[in-house]
Amino acid sequence: MPVPVPDFDDLTAHGITFRGSENGRIVKSSFKKSLGPDEVAVQVTHSGVCGTDLHYMMADMVLGHEAVGIVSAIGSACKFLKPGDRVGWGYEHYSCGLCTPCLTNEECHCLNAGYYGASDFDQGSFSNIGVWKEKWLFPIPEGIKSEDAAPLMCGGASCFSPLIEHCRPIDRVGIVGMGGLGHLAIQFASKMGCEVVVFSGSESKRTDALALGASAFYNTRGVSDYSTLGITKPIDRLIVTTASLVDVSQYYPVLTRKAIVIPLTATKETLAVPYYDTLFNGVKIIPSMLATRFMQTKMLEFANRHHIRPLIEKFPMTEAGIGAALERLKKGQIRYRAVLAWDA
Amino acid sequence: MPVPVPDFDDLTAHGITFRGSENGRIVKSSFKKSLGPDEVAVQVTHSGVCGTDLHYMMADMVLGHEAVGIVSAIGSACKFLKPGDRVGWGYEHYSCGLCTPCLTNEECHCLNAGYYGASDFDQGSFSNIGVWKEKWLFPIPEGIKSEDAAPLMCGGASCFSPLIEHCRPIDRVGIVGMGGLGHLAIQFASKMGCEVVVFSGSESKRTDALALGASAFYNTRGVSDYSTLGITKPIDRLIVTTASLVDVSQYYPVLTRKAIVIPLTATKETLAVPYYDTLFNGVKIIPSMLATRFMQTKMLEFANRHHIRPLIEKFPMTEAGIGAALERLKKGQIRYRAVLAWDA
Repeated sequence: MPVPVPDFDDLTAHGITFRGSENGRIVKSSFKKSLGPDEVAVQVTHSGVCGTDLHYMMADMVLGHEAVGIVSAIGSACKFLKPGDRVGWGYEHYSCGLCTPCLTNEECHCLNAGYYGASDFDQGSFSNIGVWKEKWLFPIPEGIKSEDAAPLMCGGASCFSPLIEHCRPIDRVGIVGMGGLGHLAIQFASKMGCEVVVFSGSESKRTDALALGASAFYNTRGVSDYSTLGITKPIDRLIVTTASLVDVSQYYPVLTRKAIVIPLTATKETLAVPYYDTLFNGVKIIPSMLATRFMQTKMLEFANRHHIRPLIEKFPMTEAGIGAALERLKKGQIRYRAVLAWDA
Repeated sequence: MPVPVPDFDDLTAHGITFRGSENGRIVKSSFKKSLGPDEVAVQVTHSGVCGTDLHYMMADMVLGHEAVGIVSAIGSACKFLKPGDRVGWGYEHYSCGLCTPCLTNEECHCLNAGYYGASDFDQGSFSNIGVWKEKWLFPIPEGIKSEDAAPLMCGGASCFSPLIEHCRPIDRVGIVGMGGLGHLAIQFASKMGCEVVVFSGSESKRTDALALGASAFYNTRGVSDYSTLGITKPIDRLIVTTASLVDVSQYYPVLTRKAIVIPLTATKETLAVPYYDTLFNGVKIIPSMLATRFMQTKMLEFANRHHIRPLIEKFPMTEAGIGAALERLKKGQIRYRAVLAWDA
């Protein structure tokens, strides 16, 4: 199906959206939003499907936050984008620019942020249109296809940012879990010169892990003592990309002194920290959420320069397509990121 | 010629060395040093030839500080090395371990350091033997040939260390000068995921620069205004590897705000800093000297893992061979590092 062109009635955009609902069924609804002076209307062509979408599929809100599309109109005060530009957006839609996190290069933790699932419930990337602040839209480099760019907007940025912030090219980086985030983290870390090893319970992912740049793959299924995995050199940085928290204490026997553990998991579970070993070994635990606009931009540039691409499964942007993608995601069957496309 | 085996008379090593002299002629002399409890005797097989050797060729001292060889004997208190191990040493031979720089991970700036040209004048890597502290000898990874490892011991470590400390994989790194250090810096930065561009006055080095990982080569010969070089994106980090200081102000038009300029040049010249532009643009100028033992070790590991190798010209370890290597080096003709070998 070609992308349905959103209508404009003066400065009001009209379009189609897909919402969650109490029983998890996807509901088609209509979109209507007028364009503010600092806002841009984007005709969505593709959307990634992220684990967080599963959290909200039973909420009455428009789903999706890994969008790529084409600018169709700009507000009167916009300065950088123009109609026809290809852009994307991710999990954060707005930052105030005035609070302490904003003023200290931590806009992901803006005290007045607009986040997916917490504001702007009437629009999302499961749609043919979005109206967002110009400053939170990111031009997509020409070399990246829209269907590949979509999963980078949240999944890609979320693993790239802590890799740049906390990992050095001299580090041996362990990636725990190989799904939407993990399979991108392997590529990013590998192209940063790191030695990358993967911990996963799915033996069937071994070949892909090695092809994407890992030097070793450790199957943790059924293993309780990780010192028996045959790890020859300890891990300097551990990036946890799983949808649920893992038992980090299992990894302690294979970490270096002063290792950094970086959980990316979005969850309200309690993280059980082996306190004495953390203290004694100088381990740091630094959860990481999202990416600043600078990191979003650098991530796209880096992915383009190093030909880093998600491995995707495409689904049509319809109630049935979205339902099927979420169902496979819930069962852990996606290899490795679902993408909704109007032309799928 | 096979490596002349150094003799041991109890714990005293005897061997051959090559010294500088007042008129710059290389003089063969004999070596004799007894082995302290924390010292190791190394039978030198290869030595790199560094620009610093030109500084000292008119001094009455043994030349050379990029050694690779085989451990032939160890002192009674040595713990890690054993006879037969392949090791190297570089510019620094000793650190006290007690001063503030030593205690704050800055042992290259040890207040009581033993440096080439400043102590231990009776031994060097232009020789068949060296007796050094065990803690300042570095095992060479199996995958790196001795003739390739030698130039890494000072040249490689000196450019690797500031790359890891000051450059991120998201940076566009400019390498100024493409000689012994520059051609290694290109490879290290490229394998760290950086975008690498080279500034050189030698058009004949363009092909090699691109083959080693640079994405662009700018010929600066005869160019006074670098904004005319056709640079499309500004430089985040500038590594100056030339033997003499360059006019850094020429690079300012092509630097980003908050760029870092890292001169590696070893010289007593005065660095002329364009003060206002440095202030206004937030540029940092951070000269970098040598590498800690941690960085030396990580550099060898990284070079091994990413197949980073110097391009070398081999000369025999004789008065004539050393003279010829130094002569070509002085004229800027070496492509890109001279290596002396007993078997050349």
